[in-house]
Order: sequence, then C-alpha cells, then structure tokens
Amino acid sequence: MIGEHSSKQYDNELEAIRSKVLLMGGIVETQFTDAMTCFRVGDIEHADRVIAGDDAVNQLEVSLDDACSHLIVRRQPTANDLRTVMATIKVITDLERIGDEAAKIARMSKNLHSRGVVGVNHFEMVRTIASETSDMLHDALDSFARLDGKQALALIAHDVVIDHEFRSIMRNLITFMMEDPRTISSALDTLWVAKAIERIGDHAKNIAEYVIYVVEGKDIRHTKPAVVSTQSDE
Amino acid sequence: MIGEHSSKQYDNELEAIRSKVLLMGGIVETQFTDAMTCFRVGDIEHADRVIAGDDAVNQLEVSLDDACSHLIVRRQPTANDLRTVMATIKVITDLERIGDEAAKIARMSKNLHSRGVVGVNHFEMVRTIASETSDMLHDALDSFARLDGKQALALIAHDVVIDHEFRSIMRNLITFMMEDPRTISSALDTLWVAKAIERIGDHAKNIAEYVIYVVEGKDIRHTKPAVVSTQSDE
Repeated sequence: MIGEHSSKQYDNELEAIRSKVLLMGGIVETQFTDAMTCFRVGDIEHADRVIAGDDAVNQLEVSLDDACSHLIVRRQPTANDLRTVMATIKVITDLERIGDEAAKIARMSKNLHSRGVVGVNHFEMVRTIASETSDMLHDALDSFARLDGKQALALIAHDVVIDHEFRSIMRNLITFMMEDPRTISSALDTLWVAKAIERIGDHAKNIAEYVIYVVEGKDIRHTKPAVVSTQSDE
Repeated sequence: MIGEHSSKQYDNELEAIRSKVLLMGGIVETQFTDAMTCFRVGDIEHADRVIAGDDAVNQLEVSLDDACSHLIVRRQPTANDLRTVMATIKVITDLERIGDEAAKIARMSKNLHSRGVVGVNHFEMVRTIASETSDMLHDALDSFARLDGKQALALIAHDVVIDHEFRSIMRNLITFMMEDPRTISSALDTLWVAKAIERIGDHAKNIAEYVIYVVEGKDIRHTKPAVVSTQSDE
C-alpha cells in the first residue's frame, strides 16, 4: 500500500513531468508557427532553424519517456495514478510527431521557394486550415494543462472541420494542376504541407482523447462521436 | 522487492501480452496484404471488409494497453522489466497506425476503381515499395517475437530504401500528370497509397527501434544511423 507521504511525492514528481511535457508542447507549437511563417515568406534560413530545432524536441521525447519510467518504478502508482502516466507517455509521442510534421513543413517550404513558386498563392490555400489547426493544438495543450475534459471534447469534434478543409484544398489544387500542368510540382509541395497540417490536427485530437481518458477514466479512442459525452455538467 | 515467484508470474503475464501483440501484428500484416490486393484488382467488397476489419485492430489496441497497465500495477516491475512493457505499449500504437494505413489504402482503392482507372498501371508503380515494406513489416514482427536486435538493426537500415523508392514514385507520377492532366486525380490516389505504404515502413522501423531498446537497453530513436551498432556479435 502506498501511504499519503509517498503519494504526495508521486504527485509532485508527476506534476514536474507534466510541466516539462507542457514545455515540450510549447516548443512544438512554436515550431509549427515558425514553419508556417517559412512557408508564407520563403525564409530559407528560418526553415533551417526549424529543421534543426526538431532535434531538441526528439531529445525531450527520450528524456520524458525515461522520466515516466522512473516514476513508475520508484513510486509504483495505483491503477488510477498509472492512467495519468500512461496518457502522458502517449501525449509525448504525439508531441514528437507534431515536431516531425513541423520540420516537414519547413523542408517543403525550402523546396517550394528555392524552386520558385509558380502560379498559385500557396500560403493563401492553407491559411484557414493552418490557423484552425494552430487553435486546435493550443486548445489540446490547454486541456492537458488544466485536465479539462469539456474543452478536450469540443476540440475532438472540431477535427472533422480540419479533415473537410483538407479535402477542399485537395480539390482546389487538382483544379489548378489540371488548368496549368506547370503548377504540378509546387501544387504537390502545398498538398504535402496541407497533409502535414491535417496530421498535426490528428495528433491534437489524440492528445484530447488522452485528456478525457485521464479525466473520465474511459478510453474514448475508436468510439463514434455520438457515443462520447462528458459526465460532468459544470 | 519482488520475489522469484512473483517475477515468474510477471514473465508469464508479459509473455501472454506479447503473444497477443504478435497476433495483432499478424492481423495488420493481413490487412496490409489484403488492402494491396484490393488496390491491384479493384475488388470493392474486399476493400469494404478491410475497412471494417480496422475496428478489430482498434479494439485490440485498447484491450492490450489495458493489459499492460494491469500488469504494471499488479506486478510492479523493476526498471529492467518495465522497459519491455513500455516498448510493448509503443509497439501496440504503431501496429494500430499500420491498421489505419491499410484501411486508408483500401479506401483509396475504392476511390480509384470506382472512378475508373486512367492511363497508368497504378499497381505496377507501387509493386516494389509494397513488397519491400511487406518484408520489412514481417521482419519487424519477427524481430519483436524473437527479440533479435541484429534483425531489427538490419531493417532499420532498410527504411532509407523505402523512402528513396517513394520519392522515385512521386517523380514518375509527376511526369504522368504533366504529360496527361486527365491522369491527375488517379495519380494522386496512387500517390496517397504510396505514402500510406511508406508510413507503414516508418512504423515497422519504429517497432525495430523498440526491439533494440528492449534487447540492448538503449534508446536509439533519434540517433544517426552511423552511431547505431549492435553490442553482441553472436
């Protein structure tokens, strides 16, 4: 049995890990914003910094995974406490993948701008999906920080909008490509950027699902939206 | 301290989980093979079965995650033992994502074949990457089953070949699209299929990295290929 003292230590250590995860979240948020700036203005040096910055995110993943393992071994959490650690481990993976996608966007920006942009205003095409995804990621981190199940649920519902927006971008790009085949290469770069953004939305949604898992103690992954509801009314 | 008796129970329970993870691995392998068959022959009913089959994979993820949590709480593993559980949890996530990609391929196959294939032999374009990725996934599961670090290392090195093959497919598809803009929509479907296959390769690589983490006790994620080496020579 774990006494109150040990349980308090556990809480403190868990809170320290959660703070670092939020720090990691802040870094990938900035990486994403910076990558979109590169895509908009074509600043290749800036893009290189975003790509290099992914290393720091990767190292954070390894060290945070390690911290979670140590916490489990030393504090031997109860089933209830373990749920939070497990969810945190999964959140860390998603954050690392968001970092990967941001680096991908930076690489595509380099490609596109070094080749010379043809025909289309590429940033304009992804402006909406980028800003909605950015909000979604911010809300996901906020709901993780405050363990706010309601906020998490709201943003899970929002992922459909992102997917819809992505399909609309794809249709537009196909139209451009058919009208002027010279735009094909740069349209594909933009398509990969849109895809990376949509994936960031997916990861934000995953984070929200883990928040609900912690708050409500139920695993809502792979549950149809209609089945999901918050238990609390406050 | 955990006695020998308890540790033996831990081993047995862990082995039971590992067997189920391998079962899950076998299912996603079949899902991938079936999805590629759908893509090749355009069997829409078959594609629907692959898409529906993803539910079973998703449920396995939830129940296996749960089994891992229970194991940790009841058996309170040492740091060494915990490493295997943590790696198993990560492998489960990758397997579930492979299932997602297989379902995506099945959906794209439906799109492509229901719209009518134009111009290009689409399966021929992805035949090589599909067969190499299929081998890679098989090796990843095999290395996980036998905890074979050498095999895991070999397939990690192979991921570069898959990425290279993917870029070559993309260049070919761009050529087709530029030559005949009527092929753009179906070329994009093929491109998404190639992308899904490439992602399956990434997940297989992730699995191999977790195998090495278990076998050698070091985290080789985010390590440059040159730095990675097996400790054992047998």
